Amino acid sequence: MSTSADPAATHSSTAAPYFDPLWSAILDIGRDGGTGGYRRYAWSDPDLTLREWFRDCAATRSMDVEEDRNGNLWAWWLPRTWLGEPKGAFVTGSHLDSVPDGGAFDGPLGIVSAFVAVDLLRSKGIEPSVPVAVVAFSDEEGARFGVACIGSQLSIGALAPERALGLRDIDGITVAEAMIRAGRDPRTLGRDTALVDRVGIFVELHIEQGRALDVVDRPLALASAIWPHGRWEFDFAGEANHAGATRLVDRHDPMLPFAAAAIAARSEAAAVGAVATFGKVLVSPNGTNAIPSRVRAWLDARAADQPTLDALVTRIAEHADTHAATEGVGVAIRTESVTPVVDFPAEPRARLAAALAHLGDIPVIPTQAGHDAGILAAVVPTAMLFVRNPSGTSHSPAEHAETTDCHVGAAALADVMRAWVTTGSAQPSA
Amino acid sequence: MSTSADPAATHSSTAAPYFDPLWSAILDIGRDGGTGGYRRYAWSDPDLTLREWFRDCAATRSMDVEEDRNGNLWAWWLPRTWLGEPKGAFVTGSHLDSVPDGGAFDGPLGIVSAFVAVDLLRSKGIEPSVPVAVVAFSDEEGARFGVACIGSQLSIGALAPERALGLRDIDGITVAEAMIRAGRDPRTLGRDTALVDRVGIFVELHIEQGRALDVVDRPLALASAIWPHGRWEFDFAGEANHAGATRLVDRHDPMLPFAAAAIAARSEAAAVGAVATFGKVLVSPNGTNAIPSRVRAWLDARAADQPTLDALVTRIAEHADTHAATEGVGVAIRTESVTPVVDFPAEPRARLAAALAHLGDIPVIPTQAGHDAGILAAVVPTAMLFVRNPSGTSHSPAEHAETTDCHVGAAALADVMRAWVTTGSAQPSA
Repeated sequence: MSTSADPAATHSSTAAPYFDPLWSAILDIGRDGGTGGYRRYAWSDPDLTLREWFRDCAATRSMDVEEDRNGNLWAWWLPRTWLGEPKGAFVTGSHLDSVPDGGAFDGPLGIVSAFVAVDLLRSKGIEPSVPVAVVAFSDEEGARFGVACIGSQLSIGALAPERALGLRDIDGITVAEAMIRAGRDPRTLGRDTALVDRVGIFVELHIEQGRALDVVDRPLALASAIWPHGRWEFDFAGEANHAGATRLVDRHDPMLPFAAAAIAARSEAAAVGAVATFGKVLVSPNGTNAIPSRVRAWLDARAADQPTLDALVTRIAEHADTHAATEGVGVAIRTESVTPVVDFPAEPRARLAAALAHLGDIPVIPTQAGHDAGILAAVVPTAMLFVRNPSGTSHSPAEHAETTDCHVGAAALADVMRAWVTTGSAQPSA
Repeated sequence: MSTSADPAATHSSTAAPYFDPLWSAILDIGRDGGTGGYRRYAWSDPDLTLREWFRDCAATRSMDVEEDRNGNLWAWWLPRTWLGEPKGAFVTGSHLDSVPDGGAFDGPLGIVSAFVAVDLLRSKGIEPSVPVAVVAFSDEEGARFGVACIGSQLSIGALAPERALGLRDIDGITVAEAMIRAGRDPRTLGRDTALVDRVGIFVELHIEQGRALDVVDRPLALASAIWPHGRWEFDFAGEANHAGATRLVDRHDPMLPFAAAAIAARSEAAAVGAVATFGKVLVSPNGTNAIPSRVRAWLDARAADQPTLDALVTRIAEHADTHAATEGVGVAIRTESVTPVVDFPAEPRARLAAALAHLGDIPVIPTQAGHDAGILAAVVPTAMLFVRNPSGTSHSPAEHAETTDCHVGAAALADVMRAWVTTGSAQPSA
């Protein structure tokens, strides 16, 4: 915990008046009354409400808002003398959507902090020499349509628009249909060639999703890398039958090979220092007295490098195959998405560290979680700032960061923004 | 398969003109276009449509219909000279509701055959000396509210009305609310004291749910007993967290002890010649990149006797406890229902066998599936007839009985009804 003697806390106290009301404004949007978790799925009502909130934030700050062809929101703060299209901008932000029963911080903290950073620069009368943008990327979590970072992936051309448009949610609604219902034109989806020109650097501030900062008792870190990770659907096809009257030897119960795969995922991941999780399962017909006809389960797996990840998923698939064959059950494994390792570039990170030198050495840590910054890293310079998460809990209503640490984060983002956009030591080369 | 030289087939050919149109009339009701399975849940639209069909069948036959206080439908054929309330009746029927993606035969075959039996007696000019009723028991499968045989259990007082009324479906709708939506008054639910007086015997004809008749190549069997069976909810409470960023040692993933319990259920059941199945699983929040906060799974277990069943469930619970403790996950096990063994009484079965002597020796077999006949057996004489199911598949769209076997079944039910309700050798003692 930061104390009042901590230079970071002292420095960050200026952020509080800007941060606190902005943060409070969205705490009730898309929150489940029962669990306290958030259900802010892409193009759902809560997502649309948050998009309106984003537009209001921009309007309050006289920032022009555009929703790009992929549904990502940009709020622009251009230098007074700027003419024409933005170029080489300092872009910061994150995402507004959540996983099912997600926490308040994952995504929105980066957007709130971005607006606060703008406020802090303006409160000091700072005028940027390059454009500044606050961005909210669309559908980062992939909670609704099964593919993460849809908005940023479409923008850099990593996801084909025809594939994105056909993705379906659990009710069978496609991305295209969801966008039309939200009053958007899905025909615009696709690679955004202006992106590379516009973005000088993208800095994403995000709550940490592990306990590394808690362990070293520091409020803030810079990201070194994102582990390669992916999602695989395991589709076990058995044969529905009566749970009472069907002899064990006559069964083709897909629950059993799924169960074996779930147990194998844990042990195989532990063996190689990786993580592997079956967090989503759909059973058909899902009746107490019916042997299932089908069990679909989604594996999330991540490792420090691609060969380890590949070998891990292969081993888990082998367990699934073996146990499915024993039970006379079919299994089809489909790769839903794979995101290669992202090594955040050293030069932008060094500039961020320099801008934050007054906070002392900033820890540099890897993350096992995917981020839009990881997607954009393929085409533009990117960096990430993490804010301490004392319990490490993430993707849960219990996700939490101390308000004082949030203030430290927003103030640090303002420092980074200031260093980048003012003439002098941090003038961007772009 | 029966051949034309088979006395059963020859005898049963008279059933075809009555059976076939009646059977065809309901084949499209509540059928899923995709799977071909039936979704005829209690008090749902398909259930209400089937109830109207039942009323039409009765009206066509000038049988008075009543829906009793528990939603069970009775169509009465009273002797011409009968005065007052029915008493000592020959009652036959089954249920109209289905499991999710159930087959066409489980339930409706018994009701169609019952009406056909009435038709066959009338076609021969037979006048009953005791009342006859065709009955459709409400919510036999328990697919919607989690408790099987709700209608018959309420009638005999085995299920308290206050418990039934509060049962909820997956959308949180209670039995009470579902009945009100269907235009019923749920306040009437409760023990039906008239039942014992009215019913002289209840005979339920049902498709076999295993392959015993296929193995011995016979179209029909009498039931000896119903295995004791029950449903238990295993509620594993873990801690939602990020599937990527949470170290394995920090996890409390409820999927793992569930998986261990599912595997243990199979092996422990095999060890004692019983059956145990986890066919229904609900995962929260069910997101690909979230460690679940909770996994609820329902165990269906059945064994030849109660001590074996009790020991089996205890062993599976021990596995769940052990693995839950290892993972730091809580587990609560709740008994949803337990149905003791039912030994169908010998005397009524002997009378059925005598009435069917022209078909040769009728196999007598136990069933692992629960039935309304098993519930009613506690208060009135009951018997069951099974119709061959060549693959043994049940609770599945693939459930099937040959039409010729269905004719044999309906004709046999008519023989049994005739012997019971005509003056002479089979006059009931009631």
